[in-house]
Amino acid sequence: MPDDRRRLDRLREAPREDLPMAHRMQRFVEALQIRICRALEGFEPTVRFRSDRWERPEGGGGLTRVLEGGQVFEKAGVNTSAVHGPLPDAVAQSFGIGPAPFFATGISLVIHPLSPMVPAVHANFRYFAVGPDLLRPGDAWFGGGADLTPTYPYPEDARHFHATWRDVCRKHPAADYTAFKTRCDRYFYLPHRGETRGIGGIFFDALRDDPEGTFFFVRSAGRAFLASYVPLVERRMHEPWGEEEKAFQEIRRGRYAEFNLLFDRGTRFGIETDGRTESILMSLPPRVRWAYDWEPRTGSREEAALSYFTPLDWLGTME
Amino acid sequence: MPDDRRRLDRLREAPREDLPMAHRMQRFVEALQIRICRALEGFEPTVRFRSDRWERPEGGGGLTRVLEGGQVFEKAGVNTSAVHGPLPDAVAQSFGIGPAPFFATGISLVIHPLSPMVPAVHANFRYFAVGPDLLRPGDAWFGGGADLTPTYPYPEDARHFHATWRDVCRKHPAADYTAFKTRCDRYFYLPHRGETRGIGGIFFDALRDDPEGTFFFVRSAGRAFLASYVPLVERRMHEPWGEEEKAFQEIRRGRYAEFNLLFDRGTRFGIETDGRTESILMSLPPRVRWAYDWEPRTGSREEAALSYFTPLDWLGTME
Repeated sequence: MPDDRRRLDRLREAPREDLPMAHRMQRFVEALQIRICRALEGFEPTVRFRSDRWERPEGGGGLTRVLEGGQVFEKAGVNTSAVHGPLPDAVAQSFGIGPAPFFATGISLVIHPLSPMVPAVHANFRYFAVGPDLLRPGDAWFGGGADLTPTYPYPEDARHFHATWRDVCRKHPAADYTAFKTRCDRYFYLPHRGETRGIGGIFFDALRDDPEGTFFFVRSAGRAFLASYVPLVERRMHEPWGEEEKAFQEIRRGRYAEFNLLFDRGTRFGIETDGRTESILMSLPPRVRWAYDWEPRTGSREEAALSYFTPLDWLGTME
Repeated sequence: MPDDRRRLDRLREAPREDLPMAHRMQRFVEALQIRICRALEGFEPTVRFRSDRWERPEGGGGLTRVLEGGQVFEKAGVNTSAVHGPLPDAVAQSFGIGPAPFFATGISLVIHPLSPMVPAVHANFRYFAVGPDLLRPGDAWFGGGADLTPTYPYPEDARHFHATWRDVCRKHPAADYTAFKTRCDRYFYLPHRGETRGIGGIFFDALRDDPEGTFFFVRSAGRAFLASYVPLVERRMHEPWGEEEKAFQEIRRGRYAEFNLLFDRGTRFGIETDGRTESILMSLPPRVRWAYDWEPRTGSREEAALSYFTPLDWLGTME
């Protein structure tokens, strides 16, 4: 039976060069969304993901799925979208090109657990094509990544997360863990805080060469998400915590909100191109605190936690 | 005795054209800071403002004063600064000029009350001069304003707030309430929410003509701040509220944080020019909530509140 399923999976994944990559990627992210939502719901005895399908007046739309108030997940959002139409002017300008049709599809997820001992996580996988012919787009690329944001980082969790992505990258010539890890550290950096958002992961963008090989990598990466994260939830969800840990989590979530609103390209792109606000901002943490000039007590667990929010060589693979 | 004080005030305010406006404005905002902090402390039986003096490596510095955890004020920040040195490249570029020395001074305050029935408020008054000679700057201007952000807007409070600013503007040829009110509505607008941050106030910038007259107006405006706001605190601080009202306040504060991090020019300017992070971000609300696709119940007080977050002609002065 598992063999049958594997065979079926392989069949489904067979290169379909007769179909536009745009549509193959869309089918993939929509299936992945179902799989991830189901797995997360497995932790929740009562609450379920709600589903909001939305349409974009200029073309396409998406499916926003959000779970709130869970026993394990305080807020989890798993969105897919497939939008098309004329490239918004601001985007065409930022690409340095004139008016053109585009197609973009992807999955984007953010999970904010209730327990401060369970890490938050973010991942997204996306495909962008420019030009009138989806079978032969003038320009097209993949992007994506996954990064972990613990309140209290556990080195063994960080190693598990990074090792999952290293192992995925290793199997694909289109991927380079070291380069993607470095890029992630640079992207999720808050210059005004002098710290990274979490303990990193991988980030890649503008992968244009070898679409077939890159799609194969992106599929493997998308499917590896649950393996990178679920074991950490299982490992930490029963650890005790109290008000002090929750307060620290909410302070750290302030940095998360700062990153998303000040720097995140996806958020700004969404706001500037008049995207669906609730889908874009579902990434914001459910409850946040900003305390003036907050500092951890010397020798505290919080002080130790802060020492991890800097680029670290978790797997001993960096030079 | 009050007459003596008034005479003294008038003496202090006499045009001192032998002194650079930069220094006169700095002296004014520093005195105003003391006055405002004292008035706010008058509401608090136990907590006091802390004072953090900071220096800017390139020249100048400031005094950040923050009160947290009060009975009336959950978080209040009243900052002054006077900075100078070479204009940061990014700023010179945005002004469309080459390298030049600059001097900037101002006061900026944000008050987040504990009670959802007491409105939050923001005000700032600032002076910017470009050029090597502060007595004869190549370019110089005043900017500032004040705006009110209630959780539950009371029309009579909004009218009191606006009337205070209308009356100040009326006395000064350099000021124009109608123009400043319109500018405030436009500035504090969240396009992705289709709503204003609060019920507005006044906003002005780049007032270059008649520095003496404008400084006279800015002083009157700065001194009117307490009269615009304190009566509203006194009026609402004893109104009962519970968890539901607090939740709504925290959701509305989410919009406040979105505005400040996504759009506020002062925040972005501060972050981009490497300002003191804790002083810039002291404006962020102490506790915030983001709920996915939150909607008020039909016929609720929250639904009624939302109807006020649009430009309204509070005083019947608009065309």
